[in-house]
Amino acid sequence: MRVGTVTGPVWATKKIAGLTGQILLRVSADGKDFIAADLVGAGQGERVILTFGGAARLDRPQVPVDAAIIGILDETEARPWTK
Amino acid sequence: MRVGTVTGPVWATKKIAGLTGQILLRVSADGKDFIAADLVGAGQGERVILTFGGAARLDRPQVPVDAAIIGILDETEARPWTK
Amino acid sequence: MRVGTVTGPVWATKKIAGLTGQILLRVSADGKDFIAADLVGAGQGERVILTFGGAARLDRPQVPVDAAIIGILDETEARPWTK
Amino acid sequence: MRVGTVTGPVWATKKIAGLTGQILLRVSADGKDFIAADLVGAGQGERVILTFGGAARLDRPQVPVDAAIIGILDETEARPWTK
Amino acid sequence: MRVGTVTGPVWATKKIAGLTGQILLRVSADGKDFIAADLVGAGQGERVILTFGGAARLDRPQVPVDAAIIGILDETEARPWTK
Repeated sequence: MRVGTVTGPVWATKKIAGLTGQILLRVSADGKDFIAADLVGAGQGERVILTFGGAARLDRPQVPVDAAIIGILDETEARPWTK
Repeated sequence: MRVGTVTGPVWATKKIAGLTGQILLRVSADGKDFIAADLVGAGQGERVILTFGGAARLDRPQVPVDAAIIGILDETEARPWTK
Repeated sequence: MRVGTVTGPVWATKKIAGLTGQILLRVSADGKDFIAADLVGAGQGERVILTFGGAARLDRPQVPVDAAIIGILDETEARPWTK
Repeated sequence: MRVGTVTGPVWATKKIAGLTGQILLRVSADGKDFIAADLVGAGQGERVILTFGGAARLDRPQVPVDAAIIGILDETEARPWTK
Repeated sequence: MRVGTVTGPVWATKKIAGLTGQILLRVSADGKDFIAADLVGAGQGERVILTFGGAARLDRPQVPVDAAIIGILDETEARPWTK
């Protein structure tokens, strides 16, 4: 997975049926811009966990997405490594 | 997914059977040129949503495409983020 | 998919059984060199359509290829966009 | 697979159910930062074997990860090639 | 597939069960270093055919590899194109 930052919404009225009901967000990660399905309710500017490829459409075989937001990083996630 | 721009058609008379009936378009995305199956009726110059990999051949296991146009961005999609 | 150019043959006597009978060609695409299974009878110098990943082994689950030539671009494919 | 180095933990309270119980670590590989599921109990600074894509969620179809730590390189792994 | 060169062995005592019995080699390809499962008995310095992704674990669903050596290029493979 990669860490990304949500940069805005995506508006696409014309799309295939498999995208109906999917919330698509623009996300910047690794210096590139992606569109990802939001599975956690992320907001603009939040730092998120992105997964790519087949993992992005788990349990949703009819949804043709290749990227998904699957978690939001805690704001305090820079706390010291204690493991 | 990535945002791409349709740059033209693809003409290939000689191709495998699985591509028959597929509309293939050239698309520029992230500074690279791709060929994608058009699933939404996109036109030249339109900004589109591209999906890659297994997601591109959903429900069409015999179609050997690895990229597909699955949506067209609204012209007004630069409207302010209101979520 | 990507547009590639066939640059030559591949000779590999020692290989796994799943590659037996596969015609492998060297292809240049996007400035990189690939080896792809030829499914359409492409010749040296021809411009071809390359597909990657799972799409390359459609209907051939025992063939461990991750790239395939699935079409040959028409020489006249630079004709004007008329769609 | 790639060789990576574990650089720290990942804290994400808000995430999809499929990530529950997964230990996620930050890993640096090939000059990029990834988040990977740890399947072997790796510690910070250890050099690990990373696998990507469908291979990362083997036997765990409900786990939406696209990268996993599947081995730890021996500290003495620089010993001479004797094969 | 890509052409790679075997650069050495991989030593990893601690690994997940799915890697048991797999011979892992370091391979350089396209200027990057990979770890690949060796399916053909390759030796150091040999030029090999690498396949990536799902193709690398064909018929071995429990083996979490994303890269495999599936052929060895003939030393004479630079012979003229005669097809």
